Amino acid sequence: MSKKGILYLVPIPIAEGAVQTLSPEVRTHTKELKYYFAENVRTARRFLKSLHRELVIEEIAFSEIDKHEGADMATLKKWLNEGQNVGVMSEAGCPGIADPGAEVAAVAHSIGATVVPLTGPSSLVLALMASGLNGQSFCFNGYLPIKDPARTQKLKALEALSRKENQTQLFIETPYRNNQLLDEVLKQCSDSTRLCIAQNITAADAYIKTQSIGDWKKKKPTLEKSPAVFLILA
Amino acid sequence: MSKKGILYLVPIPIAEGAVQTLSPEVRTHTKELKYYFAENVRTARRFLKSLHRELVIEEIAFSEIDKHEGADMATLKKWLNEGQNVGVMSEAGCPGIADPGAEVAAVAHSIGATVVPLTGPSSLVLALMASGLNGQSFCFNGYLPIKDPARTQKLKALEALSRKENQTQLFIETPYRNNQLLDEVLKQCSDSTRLCIAQNITAADAYIKTQSIGDWKKKKPTLEKSPAVFLILA
Repeated sequence: MSKKGILYLVPIPIAEGAVQTLSPEVRTHTKELKYYFAENVRTARRFLKSLHRELVIEEIAFSEIDKHEGADMATLKKWLNEGQNVGVMSEAGCPGIADPGAEVAAVAHSIGATVVPLTGPSSLVLALMASGLNGQSFCFNGYLPIKDPARTQKLKALEALSRKENQTQLFIETPYRNNQLLDEVLKQCSDSTRLCIAQNITAADAYIKTQSIGDWKKKKPTLEKSPAVFLILA
Repeated sequence: MSKKGILYLVPIPIAEGAVQTLSPEVRTHTKELKYYFAENVRTARRFLKSLHRELVIEEIAFSEIDKHEGADMATLKKWLNEGQNVGVMSEAGCPGIADPGAEVAAVAHSIGATVVPLTGPSSLVLALMASGLNGQSFCFNGYLPIKDPARTQKLKALEALSRKENQTQLFIETPYRNNQLLDEVLKQCSDSTRLCIAQNITAADAYIKTQSIGDWKKKKPTLEKSPAVFLILA
């Protein structure tokens, strides 16, 4: 059996142009990789070109991870079985975390290929680090249900779970609903529960603030319509 | 009121000498910072010296975060209120994640100081990325209880929760008990549950493998006595 290719999970910046967050290993491997799975091929091409001006992008093969259909696993297996090293890229941040890239790594494992994660920015981790909330027990819950009563029930359940387990609960929202979500959190959670809002992380205008719900209520901010992470600890 | 200092959360490598995982912003800020809270001052000094040979370590003030007593918050407030920028460092990886550093960020928030997380390696995130398990819903549970029946009960509860919520459950163990934990996971969890073991992440001898409990049972590895992350998805 010939040697299989390696699957590299390649993080990209979460804020436009925030190359100060890119580890040297990302630069090293993106200089060499000729095969990619990407959540958004246009973003991936632009990112590679911005990192390595000398790269001939036309010589690099990309397979887009379809939002509904997922990745083209036949192509992935073919490349890895041929011994080609393959990169995986999200639209932003770390592939496989809060995005649909995990199946690519799962298939690589299923054929016995080596999977190598490269270090880069994750908005969830950076938010948790900066929040001052419990980082020894935490849960990422993705998006809350959009409609009530499911939405209110979920929020109350997360607060109850956080209190019971002393566990930080993280969730996200579509940017244009940030202010609506904030209103709901302030309405549903106890005054003593701590809430961290982390927005535009790693950008020059990053906003990361933790205080009790009671204190948030005294002076409620108007959030930008940009990606935000919400964290609560009851 | 004078301008407060900024609190920087400074990640350090998780594998000895793995500087390829260090983002440029870590280099930039560690060149300037003169005040630190560190989980282990000796490790912190050695790391800084390895990054910047020209640094005069004796000019840098360190306050050790005591494992039992926590950090000296009076000193933290004093430094920040004086307008000094302060760094926080774990023994390895990202401060505030799976270590006792979170209170330092919490106190910085409580006095209205800005908290800035820098990008670096986190074994939990890298393990999750590479696992191919669900990264859209996941939970880090720290250490399992040491004694039975609490330990077995917790393991079974995590598997049930994982099944109910389609949620990846992460946990860690003291390195010398890795093999014991693996035995228990193989004994208690269903054959169809997937288990990822991620060990020595970012090191040359990294071991990251995901397969079903049934497949793990067929050929059980002997794990090294080094830090490992265990992830299950039922």
